Amino acid sequence: MMIQNDRFLRALRREPVDQTPVWLMRQAGRYLPEYRATRERAGSFMALCQTPELACEVTLQPLQRFPLDAAILFSDILTIPDALGCQLSFVDGEGPQLARPVRTPAEIQNLLEIDPEQELRYVMDAVRLIKRELHGRVPLIGFAGAPWTLACYMVEGQGSSHFKRAKSLLWDEPVAAHRLLRHLSRQIIAYLSAQAKAGADALMVFDSWAGALAPADYHQFVHPYLSDIVRDLKRMHPAIPVIVFAKGANHALSELSRIGADALGVDWGVDLSQALRLTEHRVALQGNLDPSVLYARPESIRAQVRLCLQSYGSAPGHIFNLGHGMNPDMNPEHAGILVSAVHEISRELRAGQQLA
Amino acid sequence: MMIQNDRFLRALRREPVDQTPVWLMRQAGRYLPEYRATRERAGSFMALCQTPELACEVTLQPLQRFPLDAAILFSDILTIPDALGCQLSFVDGEGPQLARPVRTPAEIQNLLEIDPEQELRYVMDAVRLIKRELHGRVPLIGFAGAPWTLACYMVEGQGSSHFKRAKSLLWDEPVAAHRLLRHLSRQIIAYLSAQAKAGADALMVFDSWAGALAPADYHQFVHPYLSDIVRDLKRMHPAIPVIVFAKGANHALSELSRIGADALGVDWGVDLSQALRLTEHRVALQGNLDPSVLYARPESIRAQVRLCLQSYGSAPGHIFNLGHGMNPDMNPEHAGILVSAVHEISRELRAGQQLA
Repeated sequence: MMIQNDRFLRALRREPVDQTPVWLMRQAGRYLPEYRATRERAGSFMALCQTPELACEVTLQPLQRFPLDAAILFSDILTIPDALGCQLSFVDGEGPQLARPVRTPAEIQNLLEIDPEQELRYVMDAVRLIKRELHGRVPLIGFAGAPWTLACYMVEGQGSSHFKRAKSLLWDEPVAAHRLLRHLSRQIIAYLSAQAKAGADALMVFDSWAGALAPADYHQFVHPYLSDIVRDLKRMHPAIPVIVFAKGANHALSELSRIGADALGVDWGVDLSQALRLTEHRVALQGNLDPSVLYARPESIRAQVRLCLQSYGSAPGHIFNLGHGMNPDMNPEHAGILVSAVHEISRELRAGQQLA
Repeated sequence: MMIQNDRFLRALRREPVDQTPVWLMRQAGRYLPEYRATRERAGSFMALCQTPELACEVTLQPLQRFPLDAAILFSDILTIPDALGCQLSFVDGEGPQLARPVRTPAEIQNLLEIDPEQELRYVMDAVRLIKRELHGRVPLIGFAGAPWTLACYMVEGQGSSHFKRAKSLLWDEPVAAHRLLRHLSRQIIAYLSAQAKAGADALMVFDSWAGALAPADYHQFVHPYLSDIVRDLKRMHPAIPVIVFAKGANHALSELSRIGADALGVDWGVDLSQALRLTEHRVALQGNLDPSVLYARPESIRAQVRLCLQSYGSAPGHIFNLGHGMNPDMNPEHAGILVSAVHEISRELRAGQQLA
């Protein structure tokens, strides 16, 4: 099916667009009252993820409110660890819990392979349903967590501030750590490939904890696996754009721009102008407003959107986004102000360039 | 009084030393059973800070265990907000609470000036007592929180993950924000100058939340004040070295190396070799091992210490430290292993260079 609003896909190919496309990480989520109502009906966060009709419903909710340029599958990065037997659950206000963490070389050795159309069929069904319900209005982004980020949760058994066990695994048992990361890479490739086959128009890999590691550890335990994932996905699905977001690892932007990804996610730790210099126009860039700007007044939101657009400048290949996901206590009206501001101000800046 | 072990001061001046000096941020703290005993006797964390004899006792505790090359005043960065009337308290396991936050332009306008020898006399008395008790064994570091970091706590009233109110103040009320940051800078200069007069051998400014801001915001609201503080302190106390630690703001290392500080603290988000390139040997560097290395096995700790020392290389001006403070659940024996490893391996590397 033809995509009607293809600004997002055009920007990913670094083609000119009439206005900068925008979507928001966690655009479907707790800050929306309609999301909270569906979540309530679902009974649990996992039930919401695992019921394609409900996952589809919440995926589409933000698009009914705001003129967003892309939809993103509603799901969780921890579907893969759950399918691998870690027994994922979410306790309200406490984040994810994995009842069966994976810590020892023996436990890593025994991990099974996932068939995404079997163990994660609920995700593929959701992708197919969302694609049908979208009627080609905007593209749909599929996604997965990256190996290091998934390993953090699998080893720790929950969120963590110091990654005590996960980092110790890297340093104390590097062979087992590489085995785990390699195994996860294979599952992620199969999972994202299945999402592409189910209809996803673009794929994004979230490495939320890439920035928790020192550059030397990043180069050993993160980068090679991101590179493998992109290489295999582009080989299997050359027409599907792949976005890599290694949050906090701005030191690696130059190197990340060389692994074959179509775009890089960028957090607000770096100016977009600097990110452009580091990546030398090899990739599109997606980002990077400080999400806390949404707590500020409408005129401040518009001023910060303008600065972000100006920092990227007139080159093609910018997809506007926050540098991190929406928070539950954010005001939906402010999200609307941000989306409109991106479109209006980017049009205005383009017009100014034509006049200049 | 002559300092017997002056490796730390020599490294700050980028002079050659026989072995790399090392101290650990939060080296006096909850990971030490003897600290917990003194803290228990004090009754509260604030009483511990405010009783010079007890602050002196815990300052010296880690030096009795480990051959550290510097002592650091035991205190808290929030002594200034407390003296400004914010009514600081610590609830166990919850972090600092400021009963009277400062949020509005009017509240900022009304902030008073502190005389450190009056309102913060307990800190100066602690410095004098520690200097006496140290008998010149190692230098004593005095410290303060930086304006932006103090402002975060004063505006939020507590720790924060998104700095909702503090960042909104910057964007919505930049004039009031600058007034607050300027006021805090003046208090910090007076406070650190008083510590120098009381006997501190070096001064360190902690900007724990510098990395929470996008570079453009950092340049507007953080950098100018760090620069002012260093300029005034060096003018008043040319012989006292000043260390600036803008955690998470590695994007600013080059610029920070030009403000006249003797050394920069470096977190583990950047390789020391890269930090050296960025700062072009204008300053000494203090850092930067990932503190979670202390959770790993002894042989991993030694391996990571070696990599960190090798990354800095043979230039003078390295002070070994963690990239962040010690955590309460760290093993004191591992801290000892780290300190010994720094001394032994740095001697070994120096010997290797002489042979080469």
